[in-house]
Amino acid sequence: MINIVKIGGNVIDDPALLDTFLREFAAMEGAKVLVHGGGKEASRLSRGMGIEPVMIGGRRVTDRPTLDIVTMVYAGLINKRIVAMLQSMGCNAVGLSGADGNVIPARRRSPEPVDYGYVGDIDPAEVDAEWIEALVDSGRVPVFCALCHDRAGSILNCNADSIAAAVAQALSRKQTTRLTYCFEKPGVLADIDDDSSVIPLVTPEIFGRLKADGTVGSGMLPKLENALLSASHGVGEVRICRAEDLGGNGGTFIRLD
Amino acid sequence: MINIVKIGGNVIDDPALLDTFLREFAAMEGAKVLVHGGGKEASRLSRGMGIEPVMIGGRRVTDRPTLDIVTMVYAGLINKRIVAMLQSMGCNAVGLSGADGNVIPARRRSPEPVDYGYVGDIDPAEVDAEWIEALVDSGRVPVFCALCHDRAGSILNCNADSIAAAVAQALSRKQTTRLTYCFEKPGVLADIDDDSSVIPLVTPEIFGRLKADGTVGSGMLPKLENALLSASHGVGEVRICRAEDLGGNGGTFIRLD
Repeated sequence: MINIVKIGGNVIDDPALLDTFLREFAAMEGAKVLVHGGGKEASRLSRGMGIEPVMIGGRRVTDRPTLDIVTMVYAGLINKRIVAMLQSMGCNAVGLSGADGNVIPARRRSPEPVDYGYVGDIDPAEVDAEWIEALVDSGRVPVFCALCHDRAGSILNCNADSIAAAVAQALSRKQTTRLTYCFEKPGVLADIDDDSSVIPLVTPEIFGRLKADGTVGSGMLPKLENALLSASHGVGEVRICRAEDLGGNGGTFIRLD
Repeated sequence: MINIVKIGGNVIDDPALLDTFLREFAAMEGAKVLVHGGGKEASRLSRGMGIEPVMIGGRRVTDRPTLDIVTMVYAGLINKRIVAMLQSMGCNAVGLSGADGNVIPARRRSPEPVDYGYVGDIDPAEVDAEWIEALVDSGRVPVFCALCHDRAGSILNCNADSIAAAVAQALSRKQTTRLTYCFEKPGVLADIDDDSSVIPLVTPEIFGRLKADGTVGSGMLPKLENALLSASHGVGEVRICRAEDLGGNGGTFIRLD
């Protein structure tokens, strides 16, 4: 069994919360992989350099200067900060982008209908699960940032939820996997302002209803889509929960029925 | 036999030269490791953020904001740019800092007599040569940036020449190694303004003379010291040459006698 854990940007932006989460992650028994999002650091740096970030539908438009900024922040600052912290907690972390060892190649997204620039999409079939397994089997813990490459010399900005889903699906070919999306909320909420309104189970049917009646908004939709896609492609357990609850079993479980 | 190649910052700052060098490196037969310096990008970014870089004796004083900047530029921008370029050239590069897999731990330098801040020194005995060998044996090519960690949660800024020397010495415990320092000059020059004045051989005795009569300046001194140290600690061949001459055999050879 291998755990694939994704940690969201809002947790990364909160030093105390990040520390708490990483301690929970480091203490987790057995084989594991971490995927981290970006946080607000990239936008801060961008503005500091006089480049106003452009977002369409919650996704960052990645022109050439922005690609350099996210490469610096995701693969550099955040990835190495997390790796150094995990190392100090006795967890033998290895920071990786998808370009490293060609572990997660991507395809640049078509500029139609929206040109997101240097943004890539991943096919789980192209993830090098064998190398990830070899690293894990040797006691190491891969820590992925949300950058991949196009095999033609360019880094591509990818979605961290999708990377976690693709890695989990790829690893599911040979073993039992558990995918956990950790963020600052206690799960998928029926009422976004009420932390006690966690929806304990989401199935494709329930998802259809939540989507139709507008209960899940644009922030949660892609996460749930990735979660359901993972559940339908061999991932044994999918859960969305609060970062501090990584070791527990609260939150929202995503199942096919 | 394994090649350890170090590429200097001035080459990294020149896109055409970097491309030429990486093609030579990618075409190099057999086992290999790349170590890259920083270039001027960190100073540029630093100034862009309103932080004037402070250098003492040619070395960067690395306070907390500067550590974040070098982590972004070295481990993020430059390392992933090189990895993506090498991948497009058919070279299965894996970008690493010394924190990743604890492959090169370092010790923070004493603040006396000069406080360089978050700067580390490396002991070749602590380099995880076994993991580097395992990566190389699997057909991958480790690409190191000049950052290590203190095992207590912090990244440390290290000298790229020293990292190359330490990795070469560590790998020499089990196999024949060749260490090549590539930069923008054709070798160690008797006259800094005359590219035809390459000194073909430097031994400890010759080094003593070059140092005493001021032929080698402050820029070349630490490189030659690292080169001689490597030669005296098992590295089979040490050479300083022009980046474009990686596949050739020009430049300055460093030998014990």
